[in-house]
Amino acid sequence: MKFTAQQIAEQLQGTIDGDPKTEVSKLSKIEEAQSGDLSFLANPKYTPHLYKTNASVVIVNQDFVTDQKVYPTLIRVENAYQSFSELLDHYSSVKSNREGVAKNVNIAADVQIPSDAYIGPNVIIESGCVIGNHVKIYPNVYIGQHVVIGDHCTIHTGAQVLSDSIIGNHCTLHNGAIIGSDGFGYAPQEDGTFKKVPQTGNVVLEDHVDVGALTTIDKATLGSTRIGRGVKLDNQVQIAHNVEIGENTVIAAQSGIAGSAKVGKNCVIGGQVGIIGHITVGDYVQVQGQTGINSNIPSHTKLQGTPAIDYLGFNKSYVHFKNLPDIVKRINQIEKNL
Amino acid sequence: MKFTAQQIAEQLQGTIDGDPKTEVSKLSKIEEAQSGDLSFLANPKYTPHLYKTNASVVIVNQDFVTDQKVYPTLIRVENAYQSFSELLDHYSSVKSNREGVAKNVNIAADVQIPSDAYIGPNVIIESGCVIGNHVKIYPNVYIGQHVVIGDHCTIHTGAQVLSDSIIGNHCTLHNGAIIGSDGFGYAPQEDGTFKKVPQTGNVVLEDHVDVGALTTIDKATLGSTRIGRGVKLDNQVQIAHNVEIGENTVIAAQSGIAGSAKVGKNCVIGGQVGIIGHITVGDYVQVQGQTGINSNIPSHTKLQGTPAIDYLGFNKSYVHFKNLPDIVKRINQIEKNL
Amino acid sequence: MKFTAQQIAEQLQGTIDGDPKTEVSKLSKIEEAQSGDLSFLANPKYTPHLYKTNASVVIVNQDFVTDQKVYPTLIRVENAYQSFSELLDHYSSVKSNREGVAKNVNIAADVQIPSDAYIGPNVIIESGCVIGNHVKIYPNVYIGQHVVIGDHCTIHTGAQVLSDSIIGNHCTLHNGAIIGSDGFGYAPQEDGTFKKVPQTGNVVLEDHVDVGALTTIDKATLGSTRIGRGVKLDNQVQIAHNVEIGENTVIAAQSGIAGSAKVGKNCVIGGQVGIIGHITVGDYVQVQGQTGINSNIPSHTKLQGTPAIDYLGFNKSYVHFKNLPDIVKRINQIEKNL
Repeated sequence: MKFTAQQIAEQLQGTIDGDPKTEVSKLSKIEEAQSGDLSFLANPKYTPHLYKTNASVVIVNQDFVTDQKVYPTLIRVENAYQSFSELLDHYSSVKSNREGVAKNVNIAADVQIPSDAYIGPNVIIESGCVIGNHVKIYPNVYIGQHVVIGDHCTIHTGAQVLSDSIIGNHCTLHNGAIIGSDGFGYAPQEDGTFKKVPQTGNVVLEDHVDVGALTTIDKATLGSTRIGRGVKLDNQVQIAHNVEIGENTVIAAQSGIAGSAKVGKNCVIGGQVGIIGHITVGDYVQVQGQTGINSNIPSHTKLQGTPAIDYLGFNKSYVHFKNLPDIVKRINQIEKNL
Repeated sequence: MKFTAQQIAEQLQGTIDGDPKTEVSKLSKIEEAQSGDLSFLANPKYTPHLYKTNASVVIVNQDFVTDQKVYPTLIRVENAYQSFSELLDHYSSVKSNREGVAKNVNIAADVQIPSDAYIGPNVIIESGCVIGNHVKIYPNVYIGQHVVIGDHCTIHTGAQVLSDSIIGNHCTLHNGAIIGSDGFGYAPQEDGTFKKVPQTGNVVLEDHVDVGALTTIDKATLGSTRIGRGVKLDNQVQIAHNVEIGENTVIAAQSGIAGSAKVGKNCVIGGQVGIIGHITVGDYVQVQGQTGINSNIPSHTKLQGTPAIDYLGFNKSYVHFKNLPDIVKRINQIEKNL
Repeated sequence: MKFTAQQIAEQLQGTIDGDPKTEVSKLSKIEEAQSGDLSFLANPKYTPHLYKTNASVVIVNQDFVTDQKVYPTLIRVENAYQSFSELLDHYSSVKSNREGVAKNVNIAADVQIPSDAYIGPNVIIESGCVIGNHVKIYPNVYIGQHVVIGDHCTIHTGAQVLSDSIIGNHCTLHNGAIIGSDGFGYAPQEDGTFKKVPQTGNVVLEDHVDVGALTTIDKATLGSTRIGRGVKLDNQVQIAHNVEIGENTVIAAQSGIAGSAKVGKNCVIGGQVGIIGHITVGDYVQVQGQTGINSNIPSHTKLQGTPAIDYLGFNKSYVHFKNLPDIVKRINQIEKNL
């Protein structure tokens, strides 16, 4: 897709310094931009880049004053950062603007596909499913029996939504994510073997939930594994059976939450964090990467370490940990002196 | 699927208090049950829920005495918990009771499919494979050349069983699991680059092995990566080339075992545990989540920490770790006093 | 595939002790070899195995002197280890020697497939892609719009290369790997919700990059996530948006690198390591498994711990950590004595 400076300036209600016919086809950071790229300058710290950038068009603030010769065409707008964000949104939505149902799909006869949906090649949708309006289901997605997909959902290539899952409105499932895999439940037998406990529940994602690539969310033993409204999960996260996560909580990559744990709302959980099963983490809890939580956690706390303790306390102790050889030398010296 | 209280009572050889025509379609916990749900009451602690539950039918012990008005239909059985478990098993097996071979599959001409197998849409089975009886292979599964699948195996959607793998009887591979991926073996070259060491071995799963969603098991360089009878692996576990795991060992989500490590039988390994390569972990070893094992471990030990040490020792030391700022203050005071 | 000792000796320019018609079909370690297997003896430590092995053919060094009766046919070569490696390479390349385009593929009309490529069943290649020579694309691979795949690349079953990704020459993507998934970028809103920041960049893999099974590499917000020449990533690694990794760096399984971090060249990074965003790790850095790096790291350092510190320092401190109960007892005693 190519656009002229003129077209962009019209969309952003900006004015042009330079050649309005200059064409661009890609959005770039000003320090990395190549010929044919559109960039922006908002933070004055980056001004020196403007005079040496290879960008063809740069969006700047209306009141920006150049003090050297500028080669790219400039588009002046009220707020350069915000205008660039708008273009990003626009570019992104144009790129993903697919419609229609591909030929080689496998959709059960009882499933109704809304007229504005996109269903890519090799998609399988089993019987009993309800598919919302404005839904985009990319190639190779699998949707099991009796799944409900809300309106405005996007399900990226290779994702799997297994039977009985309920996906709210405006959810995004990234590539290869798995919703509704079997919970890891076994009853230990006297001879040391394990008997599978059937997992007959489901997964519920409320509205505006994003699930990262290759993240797994297991269905409940009974009832539902529940991911609250606005929760954002990064890639390769593991959510076990019967977990509940409160609204607007964000979890970074490769973290895992064990069975029946409850995590509150508006928490920020770093990467590679582990939370054991059957505990409760409060609201607005912040967790540093690689922390291991093994007990109930009150709201509004900040944690680090395995087992997790208060963030400040951990870091004070860690300073002394690093210094332990010296501390022990001091004790040796004291014992000598006594 | 709808069942009447009458039908369920007959199956469980129970007696009915209330309307035998009451219908249910879902199994639920008594504290969460809705109208149309079947629940159970075994633990007396939960008795108060019986008087306010919305469940339509509740299974109770034969000798259970109500002391308030009860709205749901009751089914009285000898052991309510066990009867409910039976229903769970039944429900679960009815749900997964699929048979036949879908139309759009890609099965090599030399592969024989048993008459009682289920092969879902988009399944690929390459040449030289042996497929056991009573096998269920769900949609989008890929089975490479010369794979052997035992009897009564279930391979869930999107799982991959790569060439030369041998899968025992009664194994379950969950969604997106990968058996037989390439081992991570490179010979460092003098110029700093790495030369791939070809991995020509395979993976062997003995009987009754379960492999979680998106778990990866690499094939051996030579010989076999071997997962013992009855081993249960949770989601997103990584097993490297030439690893051997003894029977009935259970490994929780996101743990990883590096190349050529040997793990004994009946071990219980928590989530996000790491085990380095070329070491031996004994039998009946218990490992806390996020532990990092970097040396040989005797049988019947319990471990925590990175590097892993004795569980009790770790926790005693950790108490003092949390207290290090105070400990250092005491040392400062002692030095002043001397 | 069966070969006689005679055929193998000819290929390796070796001489035969024993029956040149002995047939083998599998490569094995000498201590595990069965009848019908080909093995080798290079390390004198393994000599006792030669006298009891069940291997049918064993490759030995030219000057090897037997002092007991040997049952297998021997092939004498200048360097037994190197000759066996050659056979491994040969065996491995014969096994993967597939060509042609399967029937049920979905390739956009504008994409040219080189005549020597292999494209397996169910592969999808979207429009605007450039596919290099000698490329092998295994079943169920998905390749998004405007992707460039270099020459001599191998893309294993179920891998996904998403739109705009650029893959260099001689790259290998293992099963289920995902290149170009969406970056995890959100702008926090005043009401506690998060607004997605569109990710419009791409992923660039330079030449000779290997990506492990179920590893995810997110595309950049703007610009490129860049994986340097010769980098080897193990399974289940997570690389976030805008990360840059220098050439010949090796990263073991389940490690994660957060957004915009830069990792230098020739680093060796263990398993389950976490690196936070927006920091720089130098060249030739060695990182122990489960380490958590949260600050800039100079070149030529060796690290352990969370947060990461010098490897030797960590281990000295950890010795004292394990000993903390005794240390505290000594302090108690000192205080008593004062």
